[in-house]
Amino acid sequence: YTLYAAPVFFPVTTRSSFRSRRQQVAQAAGSTAVLVAAGLPLSRNYPANHHPFRASSHFLYLATARENNFLLLDGGKTTLFAEAPDRDDALWHGPRPELSQVAESEGVDEVCDVGQLAQRLEPLRDRLGVLPPQDGATRELLARVAGRPIAPNSPAGELDARDAAARKAMFEARLIHDDAAQDQLRAAAVVSSQAHLEGMRATRAAERESEIEAAISHVLRRHGMQYAYGPIATVCGEVLHSRASDNTVRPGDLFLCDMGGETPEGWASDITRTWPISGRFSKTQRAIYEVVLSANQRAIAKVRPGVSYRAVHEEAKRALVEGLVELGIFRGSVDGLLERGAASLFFPHGVGHLLGLDVHDMEDFGDFAGYSEGRLRSKAFGDRYLRLDRDLAPGMAVTIEPGFYQVPGILHDPALTGPLGDDLNLDVLAHYDDVRGIRIEDDVLCTSGEPEVMTHGCPKTVAELEAALHS
Amino acid sequence: YTLYAAPVFFPVTTRSSFRSRRQQVAQAAGSTAVLVAAGLPLSRNYPANHHPFRASSHFLYLATARENNFLLLDGGKTTLFAEAPDRDDALWHGPRPELSQVAESEGVDEVCDVGQLAQRLEPLRDRLGVLPPQDGATRELLARVAGRPIAPNSPAGELDARDAAARKAMFEARLIHDDAAQDQLRAAAVVSSQAHLEGMRATRAAERESEIEAAISHVLRRHGMQYAYGPIATVCGEVLHSRASDNTVRPGDLFLCDMGGETPEGWASDITRTWPISGRFSKTQRAIYEVVLSANQRAIAKVRPGVSYRAVHEEAKRALVEGLVELGIFRGSVDGLLERGAASLFFPHGVGHLLGLDVHDMEDFGDFAGYSEGRLRSKAFGDRYLRLDRDLAPGMAVTIEPGFYQVPGILHDPALTGPLGDDLNLDVLAHYDDVRGIRIEDDVLCTSGEPEVMTHGCPKTVAELEAALHS
Repeated sequence: YTLYAAPVFFPVTTRSSFRSRRQQVAQAAGSTAVLVAAGLPLSRNYPANHHPFRASSHFLYLATARENNFLLLDGGKTTLFAEAPDRDDALWHGPRPELSQVAESEGVDEVCDVGQLAQRLEPLRDRLGVLPPQDGATRELLARVAGRPIAPNSPAGELDARDAAARKAMFEARLIHDDAAQDQLRAAAVVSSQAHLEGMRATRAAERESEIEAAISHVLRRHGMQYAYGPIATVCGEVLHSRASDNTVRPGDLFLCDMGGETPEGWASDITRTWPISGRFSKTQRAIYEVVLSANQRAIAKVRPGVSYRAVHEEAKRALVEGLVELGIFRGSVDGLLERGAASLFFPHGVGHLLGLDVHDMEDFGDFAGYSEGRLRSKAFGDRYLRLDRDLAPGMAVTIEPGFYQVPGILHDPALTGPLGDDLNLDVLAHYDDVRGIRIEDDVLCTSGEPEVMTHGCPKTVAELEAALHS
Repeated sequence: YTLYAAPVFFPVTTRSSFRSRRQQVAQAAGSTAVLVAAGLPLSRNYPANHHPFRASSHFLYLATARENNFLLLDGGKTTLFAEAPDRDDALWHGPRPELSQVAESEGVDEVCDVGQLAQRLEPLRDRLGVLPPQDGATRELLARVAGRPIAPNSPAGELDARDAAARKAMFEARLIHDDAAQDQLRAAAVVSSQAHLEGMRATRAAERESEIEAAISHVLRRHGMQYAYGPIATVCGEVLHSRASDNTVRPGDLFLCDMGGETPEGWASDITRTWPISGRFSKTQRAIYEVVLSANQRAIAKVRPGVSYRAVHEEAKRALVEGLVELGIFRGSVDGLLERGAASLFFPHGVGHLLGLDVHDMEDFGDFAGYSEGRLRSKAFGDRYLRLDRDLAPGMAVTIEPGFYQVPGILHDPALTGPLGDDLNLDVLAHYDDVRGIRIEDDVLCTSGEPEVMTHGCPKTVAELEAALHS
């Protein structure tokens, strides 16, 4: 592995790509006019101190986003509502383009001052579908201009029919990534892979978790990227969504790092790697790691058109249980073990999710995005956290992220371990107590042929990881 | 300057410090029971994808903060409302302490489940003062439990009398920093100074702004710190609140960097340095830099008990105009130039603000915090942006941040330049066109004697900066 030399220059989505997307959504929405809000910045402590502004993914899919902008797609016509420049703004925030210049640069049919939003939408109310906004102030504004409450994240049955039509049109467009979207996802994956590599390099000298995380973050910032989600970077891998922490790291620990950046246009990567603080896996860590790696590889190989994502999840579970049988942690037939919930004891989450502008793509649509019509979440522990159950198709991007965790709350719960009885061999398991949590996650694009592993540049095998840790 | 070797271990505010602060606030509030919300995390795009949680500064002042916690100070008694641990939480976010353990570790009199908030507050409504929450969802919840709307950030006259009493009590406590607060501010200043130094070191090899900013951010993350505010790190120094950008940097440019981190407990630093991309100031850049530095030093020297902060601002303006007269950019008497608005042409903002848990401390209280009773904002351009007009006292922390900017919108505005007439010599000014913006900002603690410059470790003179850039 060689150090990257210069910043990646990110691919830029062209005006014509944005225009095609707007046309596709408008066409799919039929007579429904679709309204999309970019959103407003959120205050961190006092009102003027903001979190970095991140526009709604729906907006980012259709145009370059600025705060407080709105897009209206009505048949063949796109109208952008934006704030006109003012003098104070030039002093404090730099000059902004005139609205006429914005119309030209965005390739939209019309640009209006955002102050006209209510007046312009009034005649359209009967056929206006609104996509869910991300912040409360924008939600209130949308409710005023639409003349009705705008529901967040509702299940399909309860949603206003106009909003449902808008959601369906947007969902269909975003589910299958066009060439420009694929380029963005690859760029996010490349830089995020480099970031992981730098995290590995910083590990052996590190005393605390934050030092490793800082090396990762450094690569993203160098490229002008933000985290796509709150990173997990911890020696406590068994806490699935561990928050930012700053534990001391010790030579015998495994470090679990779930981190991805998003491109300046907002497209996400989502990578997990697990590596030893010392630079070398112990024999027991390596054994479990190889089991999880096998689950990762076998699940990735299943990512083919027409295959249901649930089958990918099941393949990962089967590989995991097979591997644990070989180690003697489980005894008995793999089918029987799987039926009794063996996989979920150590792998209590789904094998992955949709990936796109959101790291859990379109999760603001709830299970409308993740689950095909008629498919429902399982009630079983573990499986019920599966976020995706659709048949795969070329252009869909998913994560593949099996794991193995020793969660005390699970392993001490007789309701979960009981069905396994003595087929869970706790004496053997006790030998593996230096493995708290391992996850191996890649970003995979479904194509018409072989799956494309966009994160292929990130060290993954034991040999690759140990080489990276010593590089 | 030597590279820091190991992470700083931050000072930790003791339970007894927190308890004293709670007593002070409760006592000052008299019969008003004071309710403080920690707040809720904010969604970045879809609901489960959060910005890093940052609790309200009022809460952080009084206790260790967790999401959705509330503190009630009622006479001598403190009640903490917190979420009891649940099983799913342990799986996804790690085990949480039992409420009884929280009571012990926080040293509060009572801990209740947050579900009891409404019921417990009902009998107190008539004398319940609520501090402004930072997010909309918490504001709605507070309005429900208080039985009345909770106003954000209102001017004194309109505020509910109970909320005004709570605000006054909290303001008085937070204005004068106790020893624990001073330790936090010093720690934030030390690490933020080191971060600037690393930014300087990364400059000569950098091609883009983001590479310098990344080196700065790296130091903060290594220490487990977050930015206290969105950093300004740009070659476009004349844009006062420049957003994150990623311009190419060129050898002739000055780089303006306004960046500070906050300690894990939330206490802020706020430092600006301006340095040449090439490693050497041009003759013209150096000349203007020395003028701004003189304004910075003369203003700092004025930070003494009993001196009004407006006088500090006026001293910075005077130093700036005197320096520009020496360079021939202005002609005539300094007093006359100041009267005609000369300083604001190049220095159109205030010389600084309160510093504490918020980088603009207590700005959620509006000018109630920044302006003593009876003092009002000036109507004059430039001066009207002065955020603070109080008499200084030992224990107050302020920033001192004069600047010089060539803002086209100001220099081309006859309403602003007209009063200067030919006493603004544009021919001379034209020689300084390689100076777009310079600001030099320190964090200063008012003591009973000499002001304490908490950011003294950050390179500041031309010689120090050039040495750091080549180190």
